[in-house]
Amino acid sequence: MEQLLRVQNFNVSRDGFGAGEGQSLERPFGHAEPAKMFAWAGATASWPGRTEPGGSRGLDDYFTRDFGHNIGAEIMGRNKFGPQRGPWRDHDWRGWWGDEPPFHTPVFVMTHHERPSFTLSDTTFHFVAGEPAAVLARAREAAGGKDVRLGGGAGVIREFLDADLVDTLHVAVSPVDLGSGARLWESPAELLDRFHLEVVPSPGGEVTHHLFWRR
Amino acid sequence: MEQLLRVQNFNVSRDGFGAGEGQSLERPFGHAEPAKMFAWAGATASWPGRTEPGGSRGLDDYFTRDFGHNIGAEIMGRNKFGPQRGPWRDHDWRGWWGDEPPFHTPVFVMTHHERPSFTLSDTTFHFVAGEPAAVLARAREAAGGKDVRLGGGAGVIREFLDADLVDTLHVAVSPVDLGSGARLWESPAELLDRFHLEVVPSPGGEVTHHLFWRR
Repeated sequence: MEQLLRVQNFNVSRDGFGAGEGQSLERPFGHAEPAKMFAWAGATASWPGRTEPGGSRGLDDYFTRDFGHNIGAEIMGRNKFGPQRGPWRDHDWRGWWGDEPPFHTPVFVMTHHERPSFTLSDTTFHFVAGEPAAVLARAREAAGGKDVRLGGGAGVIREFLDADLVDTLHVAVSPVDLGSGARLWESPAELLDRFHLEVVPSPGGEVTHHLFWRR
Repeated sequence: MEQLLRVQNFNVSRDGFGAGEGQSLERPFGHAEPAKMFAWAGATASWPGRTEPGGSRGLDDYFTRDFGHNIGAEIMGRNKFGPQRGPWRDHDWRGWWGDEPPFHTPVFVMTHHERPSFTLSDTTFHFVAGEPAAVLARAREAAGGKDVRLGGGAGVIREFLDADLVDTLHVAVSPVDLGSGARLWESPAELLDRFHLEVVPSPGGEVTHHLFWRR
């Protein structure tokens, strides 16, 4: 079986930003409003953060319930993991997700600063330096034959796209403009030389799903 | 975890038939052309019958790759299993699917005629009589906490709908008219008193996906 590198449920603004400026402990997405950008996913039955029964089981739910399907590892950037920059002064910071992170697999956090691995429930975080291809090789080995999720943010996805390592992308474009921040693209058309693209509006009207796969 | 009863990737004609008339060994779907009705699924990377690499990974692939996801058992009608009617004269008939059926779970075939269970690869076929609710209870127990797929045909789906046992349906409507055969509905609107509905055209243009979930 081929092991794909997949971007899943990644949200960007209409003008192409995955997060705003000024990330902090209080504002993981900077000046972007996560409640607005992720409303489509939060409304579904399969949203990993759901605590109450209910939720929609239409199109958007296919995307949220595919989140962990055949995924054996995740790669993420340091800024997705937390707001600190530079050497790790605060080892008490163990990500945004509390004691039960939604990954349930090894997670490789890309950083030039060393830090020991640790485990929360069934998610183990490793801190790795290196080129995208080398990090992907480690993640593939850890994934035990399954696919690897590329979790973002935008800068990390760009790095892996530039190295031509990404096989599929699902990007949900929200009807908000951010003006500045972490840019994924100027336009989805930039990827059309290498990827097929299907554009599917969410029937709920919140976002427009962009589905890319390699030509 | 709730155990859902799910209809997945069930195809009907524009005029509401899941199969044509005159089912036989040579024509499992009677006068309907399966190649035409299922072309959308066969084009995807995750189609269980795919033998060559390749295939699309856009919207239609979300439906085909969801086929086995969190499914622990299937219920099907006798006519989906084979073209024989009445008592089982021919025990050599073991379904349409060869030595590697695509189910990989217990399968409960609804029939009033007794026949011993048998196993092909990791699929075991059981032959069961009884009301839909009783058959569903057996399938749920066999599913080990996972969901149960209701595989069709149209008559069996109608029985379970009439007993109000179905939680979600994905029905792909093909742009063909059959005129007669095994009817699922006159119109999808019949289900709107009990189900939410989202209608999503396949970007490939072959079918229109209908996604229902309980109100």
